[in-house]
Amino acid sequence: MYVVVVYDTAAERNPKILRTCRQYLHHVQRSVFEGSLSPAQLRRFKAAVESCIDSGYDSVLVYTYPPGATPERQSWGRPQDSPTDIL
Amino acid sequence: MYVVVVYDTAAERNPKILRTCRQYLHHVQRSVFEGSLSPAQLRRFKAAVESCIDSGYDSVLVYTYPPGATPERQSWGRPQDSPTDIL
Repeated sequence: MYVVVVYDTAAERNPKILRTCRQYLHHVQRSVFEGSLSPAQLRRFKAAVESCIDSGYDSVLVYTYPPGATPERQSWGRPQDSPTDIL
Repeated sequence: MYVVVVYDTAAERNPKILRTCRQYLHHVQRSVFEGSLSPAQLRRFKAAVESCIDSGYDSVLVYTYPPGATPERQSWGRPQDSPTDIL
């Protein structure tokens, strides 16, 4: 299924969750990732995320789409970077 | 239509876009808002956002849903704040 992931983590944990998200998804904005995951990949991704966040402080929102559906997205302001342009 | 908005703006413009988003939508995470907008409200919201961002630097992603559809969202980590708990 297609997912959109937005994280809000303490600065010291940003590099770790960034690396984790990059292993599974495409970077579309500073703390926003998207991509298609199988149910098994989503479970592994969730376990990886939960191992690198402080679940009493950090928040990760995961928007899921039905099989075959993809998001409609508008981008306002700065033209979207290509994935390799984003740190 | 239902929209999910995620902004990435320079710190000095955060208060203004935060206020603008709050006028139209519900706060669900630090820089994430959701809500239902009519096409006219979406146009006004877009104009308001564009008036308070630097379109060469700031980025705003707007995920739109078909009429009647709402997002499926999982929240990992910190339990989601009620809207009034978020600054």
